[in-house]
Amino acid sequence: MAMGEIKELPKSWAMLGGDGPESYTQNSSYQKGVVDASMEMVDDGIMEKLDLKSLGFESTKDTFRIADFGCSVGPNTFFAVENIMKAVQHKHHAQFNNSPFSGFQVFFNDVTTNDFNTLFKALHSNEKYFSAGLSGTFFGRLLPRSTLHFAHSSYCLHWLSKVPKEVLDSESPAWNKGSIQCDGLKKEVTKAYSAQFQSDMNTFLKARAQEIVGGGLMVIITGGLPDGVLMSQAGVGMYYDLLGSCLIDMAELGVISEEKLDSFNLPLYYSSSKEIEEIIKANGNFSIERMDSLSHNIWKTSRETKIKVSVTGGRAVFQGLLEDHFGREVAEKTFENFETKLADNFSIIDGAAHEHIDHFILLKRNVN
Amino acid sequence: MAMGEIKELPKSWAMLGGDGPESYTQNSSYQKGVVDASMEMVDDGIMEKLDLKSLGFESTKDTFRIADFGCSVGPNTFFAVENIMKAVQHKHHAQFNNSPFSGFQVFFNDVTTNDFNTLFKALHSNEKYFSAGLSGTFFGRLLPRSTLHFAHSSYCLHWLSKVPKEVLDSESPAWNKGSIQCDGLKKEVTKAYSAQFQSDMNTFLKARAQEIVGGGLMVIITGGLPDGVLMSQAGVGMYYDLLGSCLIDMAELGVISEEKLDSFNLPLYYSSSKEIEEIIKANGNFSIERMDSLSHNIWKTSRETKIKVSVTGGRAVFQGLLEDHFGREVAEKTFENFETKLADNFSIIDGAAHEHIDHFILLKRNVN
Repeated sequence: MAMGEIKELPKSWAMLGGDGPESYTQNSSYQKGVVDASMEMVDDGIMEKLDLKSLGFESTKDTFRIADFGCSVGPNTFFAVENIMKAVQHKHHAQFNNSPFSGFQVFFNDVTTNDFNTLFKALHSNEKYFSAGLSGTFFGRLLPRSTLHFAHSSYCLHWLSKVPKEVLDSESPAWNKGSIQCDGLKKEVTKAYSAQFQSDMNTFLKARAQEIVGGGLMVIITGGLPDGVLMSQAGVGMYYDLLGSCLIDMAELGVISEEKLDSFNLPLYYSSSKEIEEIIKANGNFSIERMDSLSHNIWKTSRETKIKVSVTGGRAVFQGLLEDHFGREVAEKTFENFETKLADNFSIIDGAAHEHIDHFILLKRNVN
Repeated sequence: MAMGEIKELPKSWAMLGGDGPESYTQNSSYQKGVVDASMEMVDDGIMEKLDLKSLGFESTKDTFRIADFGCSVGPNTFFAVENIMKAVQHKHHAQFNNSPFSGFQVFFNDVTTNDFNTLFKALHSNEKYFSAGLSGTFFGRLLPRSTLHFAHSSYCLHWLSKVPKEVLDSESPAWNKGSIQCDGLKKEVTKAYSAQFQSDMNTFLKARAQEIVGGGLMVIITGGLPDGVLMSQAGVGMYYDLLGSCLIDMAELGVISEEKLDSFNLPLYYSSSKEIEEIIKANGNFSIERMDSLSHNIWKTSRETKIKVSVTGGRAVFQGLLEDHFGREVAEKTFENFETKLADNFSIIDGAAHEHIDHFILLKRNVN
């Protein structure tokens, strides 16, 4: 393992497994919307920036290798990789006068505690390519050197490898007392979160740089903020603050101790595009081919749909984290309280929804 | 999918998952013994028959790819692949004057319903190589063309893709009334099982032939019989007959119907070495480099150990099959009855243990 690589993440980092009514599989329509919104950008990127000839695809025997980093249990990952495959085939036809394309091998990656059993069951019901599961954190190496042609990572990289320890330290100026997230209101807290994000992003880019062939592409989709907007001003930040307020209620009711509350922060950081751009440039292994933000159809649906997606989606993503820290019963009560509060406050959150953006970043691996 | 390939096997073909007291993980010491017994033969095979230069391993950048077909949930698969890696490194040092070896990528394959979550958790506690999970039946293609250097399959290929339908058909001369296995006593039954084995083996060899590079090796370890010995004369055959007698008891007690009993047969076939040799030769893609039988240390342990291993091991392997056909309660009662009967009859089974052998077969992929 190279320096800076991370061996394994806490087990609660995984989305809710299985395919039951509360599972991530059944409750990831927001993340599906992100994939939908990115499809055309992915198509354009492959058509304009992928050069199969320079990648050495001369013979029809070569296999095009794709990996989705942070795939969870599906089905979103299948939509994403199938779209990539269609675009690559299209490009292949264009570059090689319709000569047959030999095929794809797709690697599905997520943390070891991800429910791969559910992923594999869903996958095999409709297989048109060779596939494999890669278990382990993407903050470390997962594939042999120069074996990957296209990397994809959707809605994962705003998850940090850990909560920066200063924000949980009552002795530190970065102590984040009274908040469960990097809300942007306290400079020292933001600095600690930002430093962790920078370190994690760099670790990710270094690992992928070794795996991706020169000329290969990588699409990163991640939650972010417009330049100059604070998390507490964005709908998504208000959403986490509301979840935090439900935990504060638990402390006030004496269900959890204040120490327990203070020792919990979300391992999330929503970066500005400027911030990400600087990290990628400093890393030096990739050229930025496109940097954009996605517009999300979820905000055009009804109030009821939006509330439902917000509640069930939040539970599928954060239940593991909350159970791990506070236990199952507290997590359950918190989500019940959260549902009520979210309905009461939804118009404020909804009104500020557009202050949060999802970054779309297309990178090309430099040829050494 | 090529002709003859099989898309998916019944879910009950998987070993008992998890890591609880009844799991395959905790109850596969017989299969571990098979791996142990084969290690030296694998080492010798790699030293004598693997030519890394002719495989094109000139640069230290090349990754050596290994796959274990039918890996179950561990830990036996880890022992097996780690032994292979050690031997390959040894050979590399010998062939390339101690120049550094770039590394390994290991694919762990089993049916989609195999408990990959348990496999991945065990795997990541001690990783020294790139790994990936391959879900799907090995009676179909799983990897891109010519990408594999070493294939391994331990104690899987005596499992058929299905029970031949004639043996369950009361109208057929091959109807296997009164037995749950191919006991060798009825010619038509043996013929039907043997034909299924031949077809499955050939499908397996065809798929692997496409995946393994010319000069690459494959080790197959599978349960078998000495030439001329019938299943009903071997300890393992008596063991299945005893399991069958427990099911007959259930029918006699009226717990299950006679039709239910008659519609159950084990999808297992123990072949002679002559039979396997003919199939491999007819397939034509591999040369037989070694064909041997393994001697198993389990038979040297105490009576108590042997009974325990036989009961818990049988449960971990066959519980899925029995539950699927007869339901959980009947399966449970059958195994309880089986435990008692096994203790009562153990000396007979034990005495005939050596009439069953495990084949060790080392194949080399022809260079086209």
